[in-house]
Amino acid sequence: MKQVYLDNQSTTRIDERVLEEMLPYFQGSYGNAQSMHSLGAKSKDALEKARRQVAGLIGAEENEIYFTSSGSETNNLVVKGIAQACGEKGKHLVVSSIEHFSVLYSARRLEQSGFETTYLPVDKHGLVSPKDLKQAIRSETILVSIQQANPEIGTIQPIEELAEIARQRGALFHTDAVSTAGTIPVEVNKLGVDLLTLSGSQFYGPKGAAALYLKKGIRITPQIDGGIQEGGRRAGTENVAAIVGLGKACRLAKNELEENRREMIRLRDRVIGELAGKIEHLYLNGHPEKRLPHNINFSVEFIEGEGMLLFLDQKGIYVSSGSACTSKALKISHVLSAIKIDPALAQGSLVLTLSKYNNDEDIDYVLSQLPPVVKKLREMSPLYNHFLKTGRRKVAGPGTDYKHEHDHEEELE
Amino acid sequence: MKQVYLDNQSTTRIDERVLEEMLPYFQGSYGNAQSMHSLGAKSKDALEKARRQVAGLIGAEENEIYFTSSGSETNNLVVKGIAQACGEKGKHLVVSSIEHFSVLYSARRLEQSGFETTYLPVDKHGLVSPKDLKQAIRSETILVSIQQANPEIGTIQPIEELAEIARQRGALFHTDAVSTAGTIPVEVNKLGVDLLTLSGSQFYGPKGAAALYLKKGIRITPQIDGGIQEGGRRAGTENVAAIVGLGKACRLAKNELEENRREMIRLRDRVIGELAGKIEHLYLNGHPEKRLPHNINFSVEFIEGEGMLLFLDQKGIYVSSGSACTSKALKISHVLSAIKIDPALAQGSLVLTLSKYNNDEDIDYVLSQLPPVVKKLREMSPLYNHFLKTGRRKVAGPGTDYKHEHDHEEELE
Repeated sequence: MKQVYLDNQSTTRIDERVLEEMLPYFQGSYGNAQSMHSLGAKSKDALEKARRQVAGLIGAEENEIYFTSSGSETNNLVVKGIAQACGEKGKHLVVSSIEHFSVLYSARRLEQSGFETTYLPVDKHGLVSPKDLKQAIRSETILVSIQQANPEIGTIQPIEELAEIARQRGALFHTDAVSTAGTIPVEVNKLGVDLLTLSGSQFYGPKGAAALYLKKGIRITPQIDGGIQEGGRRAGTENVAAIVGLGKACRLAKNELEENRREMIRLRDRVIGELAGKIEHLYLNGHPEKRLPHNINFSVEFIEGEGMLLFLDQKGIYVSSGSACTSKALKISHVLSAIKIDPALAQGSLVLTLSKYNNDEDIDYVLSQLPPVVKKLREMSPLYNHFLKTGRRKVAGPGTDYKHEHDHEEELE
Repeated sequence: MKQVYLDNQSTTRIDERVLEEMLPYFQGSYGNAQSMHSLGAKSKDALEKARRQVAGLIGAEENEIYFTSSGSETNNLVVKGIAQACGEKGKHLVVSSIEHFSVLYSARRLEQSGFETTYLPVDKHGLVSPKDLKQAIRSETILVSIQQANPEIGTIQPIEELAEIARQRGALFHTDAVSTAGTIPVEVNKLGVDLLTLSGSQFYGPKGAAALYLKKGIRITPQIDGGIQEGGRRAGTENVAAIVGLGKACRLAKNELEENRREMIRLRDRVIGELAGKIEHLYLNGHPEKRLPHNINFSVEFIEGEGMLLFLDQKGIYVSSGSACTSKALKISHVLSAIKIDPALAQGSLVLTLSKYNNDEDIDYVLSQLPPVVKKLREMSPLYNHFLKTGRRKVAGPGTDYKHEHDHEEELE
């Protein structure tokens, strides 16, 4: 059976060239990078090469890059580490309400010890308003954390403008670039950020290696204490092979990003454009233009994401959803809640995220398989049958219905 | 040139069978274990199989195993996570003075927020005294953390007895089993511990995966907040391949531990026995019997560990040392300091740690190469020349000099 993996915001398939680069560090070059002998030195050299490669992708200096094991770990280090290092200056944080849980729950954890967080709202497309940020920052604000783009709805934030506001008000600015680094151009100096999170498993690197960009001169308190690895900022034997893989993935991304980006945008727009002609009552979530090249997020009215996901799975198509049933926490995605989508439409959300491996054949396959799945599920849907009988729906959402622009504004029953 | 890797307390070479088990999770089975589709389910299944394998090695139940990225991360989670979860009961910790830095510095970090730590001394062989532990525990002691064995000097602690003391006094007991799990038998119930740290990179698994054993019913505060991975106790996309490798390494260890252990003890005792006949003024550090099967730690009088390490490196022999010059922190090993070895002897420490890959040929090679290296370095040593001229030395240490049992008790100049 044909297989089409469209869940690349969850993780990507490793590039064969990345794996090839990693293998020697599982085999002959297995030394601990902190060992003084030449086998240790080989590992150390490999780490430093990877550090240059990561720095090279985002226009940083190599001594501004610190390796961690995941984007979540990096985000915890940023939020808690800055709070602990700068807590004397103030105890106020500003984050957007659609940040990754590793940012949101780190902030909540700090609230248990006297910190306060302002959660910025977003508009119906998921954008943070610079005006809101201006109003939220206080003299005791130490950190603003806003992701460069949201992995679920794809909306890209105006980071340059937001970071400039933080800078003017004397707060540090962090951006979680897990869904952007390696996929769209990310230049720390152009963005004007002080800290940035990136993760290799989002752009064809291995799981288990991620990085923090920490602008020179900024103090941060380590969250894993112990040895002197990573300049004392993150203890633990370095996962050399995975870090080598992250470095290689950065190097490849730097060279191939533009080509991959253009092609993913073309395929993305094919799906968005053609699906609207094949499925009625389909709403696009997220921003229509300021959008990740690989992100497609629809709400399919009258049915549930879980059903689509499982039927598609049987066809070898792997996707994601923001519906409560597909979340192990059994809650509707906090991102869909924040853009104030109607809960019933949130239940019908379907997230397709492309990679550089996808091609037109994959898209043909998805475009041929998804509409009959939707049809079958709607036939079983009481909501849809109600709509067919009465011409009325039970939902109201902010998305764009391609066929019935204003349908969702009609009165609720 | 022949290569003999004897730095296995730093990290071990991965077993080919472990790597083979991991590779599919870099290639076809790359799904995120939290994804709902069948590619995600495959990863989830792999994690759960690995969890059973880890539990199987130490006689735990699978829902008592939590994956992390390193032993250091696990130790931080234990010390800080228990302190945060049980801080209401009390703010006192007890650790030995020869714990890994990830335990010691986690304790120090907590001291910044009102916790107090008792650092237990050790005797000249590195043993913690149960009597000292009894005296140290107070009603407000929440956690005792004592490693099962010290990776540097090899001394194995009487964990059963120590854990029983903690249990009677109502404190939780953690043992850092990074240097023991997979190498000697480790049974959590027999040991009577509440928490235990193990790391796959110490017994032929990959770097990047380690585990926490947390006895059912014990509360711990996560140190990486975010997603619901690991039952909410450790967020971040799971490093599936590395965890699969850790599981496989546990499985292999369970089957092959006894055989490997016996063989390493034989080789260890060959080195200890034969080297004493080849090098004068050689002291064994650590316990003569209660000792890790793979650990050899000598102090070679009159010379420095760094010199030996570098000369041996040129011969393809990779070792470690507790001397200040070989530590990136430029301090004598805190372990050698704690057993009150003379600083000059600490400078001459040489740590050889075996693996299951070593054989008699390796040992022959080391026994042939080390004595001439020592000879050459002593010829260049002012301390040695002073000794030759005057018959007097400038050191006094607690080790066992194989040829001159009482030499080191003579008066210092």
